[in-house]
Parts: sequence; C-alpha cells; structure tokens
Amino acid sequence: MQALGAMDRIQLQQLADDLSRRYAEFQARRLNLDMTRGKPCAEQLALSNGLLEIADYRAADGTDCRNYGGLEGLPEARALFAELLEADVEEVLVGGNSSLAMMHDTIVQALLRPLPGASEPWRGTAPVRFLCPSPGYDRHFAICQYLGIEMIPVAINEEGPDMGEVERLAGGDSSIKGIWCVPKYSNPTGVTFADSVVERLATMPTAAADFRVFWDNAYAVHHLTGAPDRLANLMAACKRAGNDDRVFVFVSTSKISFAGAGVAAMASSAANLRWLKQGLSLQTIGPDKLNQLRHVRFFKDGEGIAAQMRRHAEILKPKFDRVEQVLAAELGERGSARWTKPRGGYFVSLDTCDGCAGEVVAMAAAAGVKLTAAGATFPGGKDPRDRNIRIAPSMPSLSEIGVAMELLAICVQRVAIRKLLD
Amino acid sequence: MQALGAMDRIQLQQLADDLSRRYAEFQARRLNLDMTRGKPCAEQLALSNGLLEIADYRAADGTDCRNYGGLEGLPEARALFAELLEADVEEVLVGGNSSLAMMHDTIVQALLRPLPGASEPWRGTAPVRFLCPSPGYDRHFAICQYLGIEMIPVAINEEGPDMGEVERLAGGDSSIKGIWCVPKYSNPTGVTFADSVVERLATMPTAAADFRVFWDNAYAVHHLTGAPDRLANLMAACKRAGNDDRVFVFVSTSKISFAGAGVAAMASSAANLRWLKQGLSLQTIGPDKLNQLRHVRFFKDGEGIAAQMRRHAEILKPKFDRVEQVLAAELGERGSARWTKPRGGYFVSLDTCDGCAGEVVAMAAAAGVKLTAAGATFPGGKDPRDRNIRIAPSMPSLSEIGVAMELLAICVQRVAIRKLLD
Repeated sequence: MQALGAMDRIQLQQLADDLSRRYAEFQARRLNLDMTRGKPCAEQLALSNGLLEIADYRAADGTDCRNYGGLEGLPEARALFAELLEADVEEVLVGGNSSLAMMHDTIVQALLRPLPGASEPWRGTAPVRFLCPSPGYDRHFAICQYLGIEMIPVAINEEGPDMGEVERLAGGDSSIKGIWCVPKYSNPTGVTFADSVVERLATMPTAAADFRVFWDNAYAVHHLTGAPDRLANLMAACKRAGNDDRVFVFVSTSKISFAGAGVAAMASSAANLRWLKQGLSLQTIGPDKLNQLRHVRFFKDGEGIAAQMRRHAEILKPKFDRVEQVLAAELGERGSARWTKPRGGYFVSLDTCDGCAGEVVAMAAAAGVKLTAAGATFPGGKDPRDRNIRIAPSMPSLSEIGVAMELLAICVQRVAIRKLLD
Repeated sequence: MQALGAMDRIQLQQLADDLSRRYAEFQARRLNLDMTRGKPCAEQLALSNGLLEIADYRAADGTDCRNYGGLEGLPEARALFAELLEADVEEVLVGGNSSLAMMHDTIVQALLRPLPGASEPWRGTAPVRFLCPSPGYDRHFAICQYLGIEMIPVAINEEGPDMGEVERLAGGDSSIKGIWCVPKYSNPTGVTFADSVVERLATMPTAAADFRVFWDNAYAVHHLTGAPDRLANLMAACKRAGNDDRVFVFVSTSKISFAGAGVAAMASSAANLRWLKQGLSLQTIGPDKLNQLRHVRFFKDGEGIAAQMRRHAEILKPKFDRVEQVLAAELGERGSARWTKPRGGYFVSLDTCDGCAGEVVAMAAAAGVKLTAAGATFPGGKDPRDRNIRIAPSMPSLSEIGVAMELLAICVQRVAIRKLLD
C-alpha cells in the first residue's frame, strides 16, 4: 500500500476510479447503518436483565423505597457510588437516570446563585466562559451554547488538555468559570489524563474564585483491555492543594447497566454538596430510590461492577478490533487519516486530512452509513480543521461495523484524492 | 358544648384547667406522631406492588426501554397520561419521578430564555412576580423564594382564587409572570376550582405576554367520595380563548402508585412543548422509560387508574372521617376553629382563631405531635393571620390520628382561651 502523497496524478486517478467503483457498489446495496451513537447494544443490555427481576423495596436501614424522601440517595447506593467515584460516602449524591441532567442542573444553579466562595452568581458577571478541551463531548458543548456560555476550545493531546493553555486562560480571565473534562477514555479521543495534568488542574491558580472543573468520569470503569488505565484522583488532589471546592465529579451506570434506566451520581466537597442540596431540595422530594436499590442488590459492590465491565468488554472489544482491522487494512499506509486505538470508553476518533471531514461524512451518508456530524466534537459544531470524525462501534454488529468502516475508508481516500487532484 | 365566646371568665378558667389536665396526660404518654407529610401509607403503597414484578422492557412499537432515547416519553405512557391530563397525546410530555422537578425546571428555563410570545427571558425584566393563592402548597412557594421570584398572596375561597384580585393584578402588572394553582382538591383547602374561575383564568387579559398558569393537578383523580368533583379543562378553555400558550399542566402518579418511584407528566400547547423540549434535549437524553412501561403495563388505562384510586379511597376515607369525628366532637360548637371536610386530596385545612396557629403547633409539638409549621401554607412561611394549620392524615394509623386530633383540639381551645383571658 502506497501513501497518497507518494503517488503521481495517474496513480491517484486510477485509485480514485477504483474507489469510485467500490463506492458505487456500496450505494447499490442501499445500506442503512448508524455509527453515530454511543449506545450499548442489546447483548450488553441483556447483561443487566437481572435488575428487572428485583422486586424488593426495603433498604438496609428499613427505608421504604416506594415512598418519598432521601434527597441524597439511598445510603447503600451512596456507598456503592463512593467506590466508583473514589470519594467518601458523605461526598456523594445519587440521583435519577441521567448524569447529564446533573451537570446541566449544576451549571444552571451556578448561573442563578453564588457558588461557595463567590458573592455573585455566574450570571451576575456576564459573560461566562468555559474551557472546552476539543475534540470533546458534543452534549457538554451544547449545554454551554444553550445557556449562553462562551466556549474557548483548548487542544487535547495524549496526556489530556494542553495545560499550559488551560493555566494561562483560567489564571488570567475571571470570566472563565469552568472546564469540561472527560478524564478517562475521553470522548472521543480515548485519552486518560496523565497524573501531571490532574495535579495541575488541582493546583493551578484561577482568576475566578468560583471556577469549577466539571469532571465527567463517564468511562471510569469502561476498560477494553486487561490492563486498565489508572486516573489520578482529582478530588483528593484538590484537597491536598487546599482547593477542596474546585471540582464536581459525575458518573452514571448508563453504560454499566441500562442506558435509559440507570442511576447517576456525583461527588464534591462538603461545601459544594451543601450548596447543591439547597437547590435540589427545592427541585424534588427525592430521586427514584427503587432503581437505586435494584442497582445495589444487583451489583453489590465495586467488584460486582468490575465483573460486569469485563463482560461488557468481551462484547465490545471485538467491535473495536474490527474497526481497527478494517481501517488498518484499508488506510494503513495511505497517510490520509489517523485514528485512535482506545483502551476503553466508547469511541474511536479519526482525523482525516484537513478540510475533508465534512465531505467524508456526507459521502458516507449518501451511501447509507450515518456518521456523527463532522464538527460535532467541537464547540459550536465547528471543527477549525474540519478533520475529526467520531466513530461509535458499540451498537452495530461486527459485520455492520466491517461494512461501515470499509465504506468510511473508501470515502476518506476518495475525498483526500479529490483534494490532491484539485 | 358551649361556644367559648358565650362563656364567662370562670367557665373559661374551668375549661382551661380541664384542658391543661388533659394536655399533661398527653405529655406523660411521650407521643411521637407526625401529621406533617402528605405521604401515602404502607397499605396504599402495597396496592401497587404489582409494579415491582413487571420485568418487561419492550414497548409496543418495539422500543427497547433499557436503552437511551425517547425525550418525550414512551408513546403508550403519553397516551395514558393524556387521559389523566385531558389533553391530546401530542401535548403530553412524560418525565421522571417528580412533577415538582418539572415545575422547577420549567420556571428555571423561563428565567433563562424567552417563552413563546416573549422576546426576553423572565430574568431579563427584573423583578419577576408570581400570584400565590394562599393557603397553598409550600413547595411551590419555596421554588419562588429560592429563585428570587416575588410572591403576591391572593385569597382562595370555596370557588378557587379570588378572581377579581387575580384579574386586577395580572392585568395591570407586566412583571407578574405566573400563578400557582392546585385546581382540584387543592392543597391544603380541598377546594376544586369552579368552572367560572377556570374560564376567567383562560380568558383574562394579562399585562405580560409571557404570563403562565402553573396548573399543578396533583390530585386530579384523588377522590374520597363516590361523587367526584369535576374540574373544567383549562387547556381547552385557553384554546377557545385564543390563549393556547397560557398554561402548563402537571400531574404525577406519586399518590397513585409509588410516591418516590412514580412517573410525572405535563401537558401544554404545541409552542410551549417545542420550547420545553429545546431545553430538555440539552438536559437529558431521555427519561427512565422502564418505569413508564411498568406503569402502563400495570394500570393499562384511565379506568385502571380510577379503580386504583377507589382502593386508595377505601384506605384514606376512614382516616379523613376520623379527623372529622374527633374535631367535631372536641371543637364542634366551641367557635375556636373551622376546618375543611375535603371530598378528595390529601389534606384537612384548619383555621384557629387569629394569632393562635403558631402557638397551637408549638404546644402540640411539646406533647410529641408534629404538625406542619404554622405559616408554611403561605408565601415566605408567613400567615398574616397566623391561623392556618395543615393536617395530613394519610400516613398515620386511625388510632394515631385519633390521638393527634384530640391533642390538637385541646391545644386549639387552650390557646384560644388564653387569648380570651389575656
């Protein structure tokens, strides 16, 4: 296999013709494949069907989970999530089915009333800005856009966000109130933040006293290999640095048990939790404790969750492997794309040549393979280099993945050649 | 039994001594009774234990309820709630376990971005005011207080809120953005709004284009008698008046199935629902559809819910009867209190003589009977006449209710006599 850059115009044209022929064959198959959503597949969901059978309603302390109450979540659920969050039980709040809702609500509350350490709500000091390591999670950015929070993209590399840039920005601009992080098996790049990055996030001076790290540890236990990445404990590091209130940590069982009917939780300092509960007590009488109890009964403890995650990996690993096999076989030496080989999480992140991603996604769609919109992984949906494509292999079958990746590789090369020949 | 007002000082003193003796006997019993919370009792919760056994996860259209998606709620859940809400299926949004959270979130969204018909969010035009028919639901008022919304109390009478006052205020002040209503078996007065009140709420001119009625129909089907109150359909009346966007309707199964693990829903106009879903789509990927499916499977339809409510009434009616019996026997002709005889809902509302409620609640507490804090049913926790006490008979047993009401009656009379003798 030859690199595109080493081919002359005739060779490129021949390859282009070949790719066009293959593309036409795919079109003739009238495919309808969706590679966009990080959804668990049916086999993964079936791993937790035992949850459905649990009909108990009595918590360990006698609480009737059918009735009102328990704003912080069930004690045994808090204990289970404390393991997952590497926090003290008292630092944990267990909620409903959506950690995204917890993130959204935390930001809304911060917009409306002063966080610990501040005298004004964020909204009192317009504009409000967030640092957004990119590519990142589109729903994080969508919350900012929706709530009128300006987003400042920051590069993310193999170690995590570009900390020089983060320190310079957060240290110099008091309107910067937060940073979004998916610190482990990051969405979409698969990066786990290095210890030094965690330490710098904990210790860096910030111009805003009410600066917060939104630590979305969505893939905390979502390993694909037998040698899991290890993420340093940001809450502990913040405590050591005397910045106890700096971080909100989020997690959920959406990709551990049921994506639509799991349990979400968060952890933070005593002061932040008091502040959160003030708002929460106005918002609801309490979360669905029955579903929390089901999860505790089903998983029992951190080891129960770890065992479940190994079963998930058995289903997911071959899918990620298939992505890698097809992309390597089709694109290996071409020099027209780079992609990640994640050790966990839900995504493969592929970078085309600059200025090609939008066209590649459109071309794949025209042949019946839906990919995440180009740019979706950047603030405002705008990838400045128009090159990043997020691939979500969990939901489709192995053969669907094979077909979709082959088509993607065809489109990547075809568009790259068009650019070269232009 | 003689009215206190018809007794001379010697008779009053004798009665007071007798009451004090009885009060001391109660104190000696070291009671620990809680009459504060409108919580279903264990027998009521057991009516829905069938819910716990439903292990299915496949919706009628094939949707896997274990997975992500379905922002508006499960189609069959929307249909079930459309019956309850007397709305079209397309006007219904089914959510998580808390209608209070839906109310809170709707207000927060309105503070942050313009409602249909407005160019500014509520928060753009400080101050924001709400009309608060009082006595009313403390958690409604708490949301306003917390979010910095000024509350204007409006009297509530046998027909509903004082509509002359409501029309005058909402018609003349564009900072008045909403009104809280519990229109059926109102909390705490038990009133069901008259047709004329519903019609006037739908047709009245409002100074604010983004004025909204928050129609918390929490007790829509919570009848205590065989001859249910009928509430006119406010959404339909608003449509007839060309004020389609005026109302948000809320309901939940908290007091139909499980208080902590039920399903909440709301209904509103197409424009309002579009506006709501814009916010909701940023907040969550979707509600817990499994719990929605369980409810649909268990209740099936409106008649299934109605049958369940008849079973609830069999448990609740004797409790309300006991309240009435004891209060009538102890206070009947004394002229020291008036109280409601509700035909539905969860509360009895008792008015002491002016200036007595706080003292009565404190005196009952000192003998081990916890009553809802005096003033809790008014904005800011301040009852201008210090007379309203909310009684919640659902949770305690019949004998506990008997004991608590006897003590309450003793305290009511004792405090009234002290005032008369002062």
